Amino acid sequence: MKRPLEPSAEGRGRVVGITDGVFAIALTLIVLEIRVPAHETVHSERELITAITALAPRFLTYALSFLTLTIFWFGQQAQHGLIAKSDRRLATLNLCFLGFIALLPFSTDLLADFLEFRTAVLAYWFNLLMLGLTLLASWRYADKNGFLAEGVDAETTRTVYLRIIKAQILWAVGAALCLISPLLSVGFILVVQLIYAAAPRAPLLRKVIG
Amino acid sequence: MKRPLEPSAEGRGRVVGITDGVFAIALTLIVLEIRVPAHETVHSERELITAITALAPRFLTYALSFLTLTIFWFGQQAQHGLIAKSDRRLATLNLCFLGFIALLPFSTDLLADFLEFRTAVLAYWFNLLMLGLTLLASWRYADKNGFLAEGVDAETTRTVYLRIIKAQILWAVGAALCLISPLLSVGFILVVQLIYAAAPRAPLLRKVIG
Amino acid sequence: MKRPLEPSAEGRGRVVGITDGVFAIALTLIVLEIRVPAHETVHSERELITAITALAPRFLTYALSFLTLTIFWFGQQAQHGLIAKSDRRLATLNLCFLGFIALLPFSTDLLADFLEFRTAVLAYWFNLLMLGLTLLASWRYADKNGFLAEGVDAETTRTVYLRIIKAQILWAVGAALCLISPLLSVGFILVVQLIYAAAPRAPLLRKVIG
Amino acid sequence: MKRPLEPSAEGRGRVVGITDGVFAIALTLIVLEIRVPAHETVHSERELITAITALAPRFLTYALSFLTLTIFWFGQQAQHGLIAKSDRRLATLNLCFLGFIALLPFSTDLLADFLEFRTAVLAYWFNLLMLGLTLLASWRYADKNGFLAEGVDAETTRTVYLRIIKAQILWAVGAALCLISPLLSVGFILVVQLIYAAAPRAPLLRKVIG
Repeated sequence: MKRPLEPSAEGRGRVVGITDGVFAIALTLIVLEIRVPAHETVHSERELITAITALAPRFLTYALSFLTLTIFWFGQQAQHGLIAKSDRRLATLNLCFLGFIALLPFSTDLLADFLEFRTAVLAYWFNLLMLGLTLLASWRYADKNGFLAEGVDAETTRTVYLRIIKAQILWAVGAALCLISPLLSVGFILVVQLIYAAAPRAPLLRKVIG
Repeated sequence: MKRPLEPSAEGRGRVVGITDGVFAIALTLIVLEIRVPAHETVHSERELITAITALAPRFLTYALSFLTLTIFWFGQQAQHGLIAKSDRRLATLNLCFLGFIALLPFSTDLLADFLEFRTAVLAYWFNLLMLGLTLLASWRYADKNGFLAEGVDAETTRTVYLRIIKAQILWAVGAALCLISPLLSVGFILVVQLIYAAAPRAPLLRKVIG
Repeated sequence: MKRPLEPSAEGRGRVVGITDGVFAIALTLIVLEIRVPAHETVHSERELITAITALAPRFLTYALSFLTLTIFWFGQQAQHGLIAKSDRRLATLNLCFLGFIALLPFSTDLLADFLEFRTAVLAYWFNLLMLGLTLLASWRYADKNGFLAEGVDAETTRTVYLRIIKAQILWAVGAALCLISPLLSVGFILVVQLIYAAAPRAPLLRKVIG
Repeated sequence: MKRPLEPSAEGRGRVVGITDGVFAIALTLIVLEIRVPAHETVHSERELITAITALAPRFLTYALSFLTLTIFWFGQQAQHGLIAKSDRRLATLNLCFLGFIALLPFSTDLLADFLEFRTAVLAYWFNLLMLGLTLLASWRYADKNGFLAEGVDAETTRTVYLRIIKAQILWAVGAALCLISPLLSVGFILVVQLIYAAAPRAPLLRKVIG
């Protein structure tokens, strides 16, 4: 007999659909904060170059959030590739994760506008933290409720946990650096994201980032 | 012989595609109303914290609408998981449902701007009501026209009806509370959404929310 | 041997994906033109009701464009359900169609702002015309190049042509009515869209709209 | 044994999903820069026609970016149709490509606002260049790592390389023309895009564009 919202492969497919949608929109929205210079303030090629150069912090935060979205898109995908089916609670956890992905354009914009403020860096870090926590919660839920795919052994399960936690430790270190200087903090986090996004094969780095 | 827009599994797939798209966009758009404080008005960390704290009502309505979208995404999915095929009319009913999903960012914004006004609460409730009515209409249509999947028995069919109606009664009670205070009304609806989203297993609660 | 962009079922799937995406975004964007009243101008429940009532033309054009999008989503779907594969040119024609779907939020906004101007009505009608022409062109191309699915007979092929042309005639009549009054024009087109969206079974109406 | 993010067909499907999403949003966002004339400045049909005519440069850049998106959507699709599976790095390269697709609405807006400035033309060209480079890098990566589908021979592989390079040469010529006049530059690039989008069968043209 069929009942509404039983754990199913279709439910899993819907989660994938809405996830890719939210990521695609977030990827495009973070660009909207890079605003074209007002026409009235520009009268020569030189002034236009100056105006575009002045957008540098926005391109920086765009790159940062682009990398962040990339990393979490893979994080979500790595998990879902190992999950065979999804029930309502697992989907809810995934939606909470998406709720914080949807908040990223706001955090990015705040950071771009207040790059020299610790509060803005901490708000951005808080967003990263919540993304990690929701990802951790959904992996734990899938693990405890037997939703993992066949052939996922204990070591792989542990690797997924470890990766999330290692990344959070690195970001927490980055956030703590804002006690010295907010820009240093952003720089550190940017380097971390670059390493994750590039997924290097160097054994030492692989050990650190899991 | 093939004719345009006959009831088909492909038609059902297209409805799923556009539905997940509209939900993904609505989830992301409701964040856009949380606007970063103007740079000119902020000169210290303390002022930035104050400015972010002042955004609290917007985070509240964001959470509210995020939960609402979550609940209706599941509502739509619960139905569609029980429907085997879709014809043009069923798809039209689904699009009407999506039309009111698309209106939710507007209702949310209105509520955030006028949280102390009964009219804003009632407009938000009206949006919830129309979402329920279009969902009810499409379930009724699928039920009467034999589009339900095999193995969907009379009890399951009744459960789907009951869930929609029970939620509407709770929201109507919430809306009526705005006679006492609009904020009480919003608080009540928020608690209802939280319970639905968390999908608790407590038998008493399960009986109330179906 | 595999060559890039040969006519294939996958190409057809990609067209469906981007089509549903553009429609989902257009459906949500047309709402963004309904702007929440400014907080400064509203001091009482009565003033808020007045301010919301003043948005009526925007709700009208929202409803109109929502119906238009519905109708063309079905139009595109009716065609694609009868097309077995897609090559680059057919996909290009479909993208041109999507280009005019993407313009609809602009035409809608123009109409809402200048409801009493003939020029705005004609611009809206021009958008409808281009949507019909691109749909017609892609059907003709699929028909002439043997991309139609098996089991699509000559009568069905003709029905698809006729439906597009009949709708265009009705909209042209509607547009011509703006010589008398732009609002009459909009009202007429709105009624036409309502009839199409409802897809009534009355034999006389069915004959007119194909 | 299952490991996270192994090269797989599902990974490939996710890349397609997010790609179509980003393209759909970019297609719709480039329209948002065509802004409806302010109501206060328009008092007659004639003034409305004048105001719409004044939007001509925006319609021009819309058409240009629409064609650019079309061409790169096909470019990405031509590649992915020949790629059997995707690992994390290939997906990252694809996301970088999408990062520059997401920047296109910005470049388009800059161009529309500063059509007479060389800097704006060069910024637009730089965007085209980065799109080509990321596409080239992902094709090279798939080629070197054995991710190409069976039946993709050396000639086809070479054709894909050549097409990307030929298009870049044509755009570089177009960009260089801005030394004479920025508008000539835009005109040249527009004609190149039109030829690519139309995919003509004329043997001479086919030889030039690959």
